Amino acid sequence: MSVERILEGLNRREPAALARAITLVENQRDGFERVLSHAHGLVGRGTARRIGITGPPGAGKSTLTEALIQRFRAQGHSVGVVAVDPTSPFTGGALLGDRIRMEAASVDPHVFIRSMATRGAHGGLATTTEEVADLLEAFGFERILVETVGVGQTELDIARTAETTVLVLVPESGDGIQALKAGVMEIADLYVVNKSDRPGADKLRQEVEVMLGLRRGNAFRHVAPHHAPHARADGRTGGRAGTPSSDRPTAPPPVGPDAAWEPPVLGTVAPTGAGVDELVAALDRHYTYLETSGQLAERRRRRLAARTRAVLERSVQRWVAETTHAEALLAQRLEEVTDGRRSPYDVAAEILDQMKTGTAR
Amino acid sequence: MSVERILEGLNRREPAALARAITLVENQRDGFERVLSHAHGLVGRGTARRIGITGPPGAGKSTLTEALIQRFRAQGHSVGVVAVDPTSPFTGGALLGDRIRMEAASVDPHVFIRSMATRGAHGGLATTTEEVADLLEAFGFERILVETVGVGQTELDIARTAETTVLVLVPESGDGIQALKAGVMEIADLYVVNKSDRPGADKLRQEVEVMLGLRRGNAFRHVAPHHAPHARADGRTGGRAGTPSSDRPTAPPPVGPDAAWEPPVLGTVAPTGAGVDELVAALDRHYTYLETSGQLAERRRRRLAARTRAVLERSVQRWVAETTHAEALLAQRLEEVTDGRRSPYDVAAEILDQMKTGTAR
Repeated sequence: MSVERILEGLNRREPAALARAITLVENQRDGFERVLSHAHGLVGRGTARRIGITGPPGAGKSTLTEALIQRFRAQGHSVGVVAVDPTSPFTGGALLGDRIRMEAASVDPHVFIRSMATRGAHGGLATTTEEVADLLEAFGFERILVETVGVGQTELDIARTAETTVLVLVPESGDGIQALKAGVMEIADLYVVNKSDRPGADKLRQEVEVMLGLRRGNAFRHVAPHHAPHARADGRTGGRAGTPSSDRPTAPPPVGPDAAWEPPVLGTVAPTGAGVDELVAALDRHYTYLETSGQLAERRRRRLAARTRAVLERSVQRWVAETTHAEALLAQRLEEVTDGRRSPYDVAAEILDQMKTGTAR
Repeated sequence: MSVERILEGLNRREPAALARAITLVENQRDGFERVLSHAHGLVGRGTARRIGITGPPGAGKSTLTEALIQRFRAQGHSVGVVAVDPTSPFTGGALLGDRIRMEAASVDPHVFIRSMATRGAHGGLATTTEEVADLLEAFGFERILVETVGVGQTELDIARTAETTVLVLVPESGDGIQALKAGVMEIADLYVVNKSDRPGADKLRQEVEVMLGLRRGNAFRHVAPHHAPHARADGRTGGRAGTPSSDRPTAPPPVGPDAAWEPPVLGTVAPTGAGVDELVAALDRHYTYLETSGQLAERRRRRLAARTRAVLERSVQRWVAETTHAEALLAQRLEEVTDGRRSPYDVAAEILDQMKTGTAR
């Protein structure tokens, strides 16, 4: 399918064209930037929202994603999903296999699920993920879920290309809480303790709340087990989002330009759907917060600046890779680098110099 | 301290100069490539070995690292450690704090421990880690441990800058086994089930062995609980490395140019030291395997090629960042990108074009 044909197909909202466009972008084939330029003109205009979902393997993110898809569909929204699964450089991963089965099972034309393998691409994976999300938004999907597995920096970078980042933990995920302790995960907008019917769920929620409280220099406010809203030391009311238990708070948290967002810690049982309505409500509250505080525009601006820079870096890297002379010089010098006569730094400087003076083409 | 002073200090083996050199490299300050060029001439010559240790948070990697340091010291080797800890972009992580205390506690002049924060640097973190390991090797350390927390692609890339990669799991790390299932972790050379005195350790070891066997298309050979060497279907003897139990195999596995390495799955209890001697023996066996099979030279060559390319990419990126006109143009175009008049791709193409024709300086 030519780029022209893909662009036409996108305009006509053909799912096949969307699938082709994503493949083009994923593999950075000729013309992919034209397709993305086209998509760029269509994003950030409508009411589409992007939600990033991350967490350790086994936290039930896929089941939760499915539950969210159902809720959004019930609200009348179309849903696009980009799932980034960890795969080995050598073999496709088992999680990806699961996902492909899930994709095949999706027959609702208003739901589009796309898996991305991480092999090879991990350097610019967050950028590619964001670009695929752009395609989904430009195609007209109203809720875009970006799901990624892991609690490392790469996974967070991916989840944070969305407007709202949800971190999913489970009672047995010792890793999750360790990563939270290490500060890796403190930048989510919402925390979800999934499988919250299991032993240890209440304890985990408390731990996460204490941790978030500690980070705000406010150690003692989150220890109360049932998270009812109560006055903070600074006089503002802390909003705790809903929980699936019967004693959940009914007062919504204050939002507005001056209210800082305090990430709620929610409990869900994804297979039964318990807590999912509360999660959807919290997602709405966060979006409202982003809109009214001006953060939505600000975050978008920051993301676009970062993206433009990333795209430029990628283009420059491709330029290096495609500069025949640079590649030849690399190959030619490798022997000398291996035996220690030259260093990688000498060789890189030599090639860069030729690129700067325009003699490397 | 000037670059000249650092180079002099390195030649005189002053620890303060080493510390400065590492800081210089970590922050990519002026002259860092000169220091690395100097170090490059000194690495890969002697008997230094690099060992990468990775695994989920809480697997006991630090305790295991300490146990290895003791063993290597008892063998008369000096030990350098690069510990890459996950930290948030905003705050130093708790794990990093632990590590800094450990560094301070180290009074043995033949042990040097250096932590690296991941903030900001995650794109080229594997390269920077390898460069710091170069400095340690050039300084004369004989065993270099590269410890990193996490089971994602980034962490593996870091651990794999070493000659031997060890993956540490614990019975309770559901994440670890999930990541293994996903194929993220299949590229370790040695697997260690730490805290192997805990319930579930035997089960985990069996699971890992089955998984590794499945990947080799040899599903049934690893199910026997005690891993005694036994004939494989192809007639070769499978070498299982030592375990802390009394019935561990005594016959060493066959190594040589034709023997493929089969990653052993070991059990350790790091605080008591159980299984650590067997781990050291397995590390020796792997190194011998690398040497006799020609893999050592081959891996080194591949790493240097990859490094030279990474250094070139980094240099080009710095060139972009330092090209005043490019930065100005980025800032100038951001408004148009935000309001959709231009796309990131148009702007990147425009800047790249100017760089190519040499008008962007």
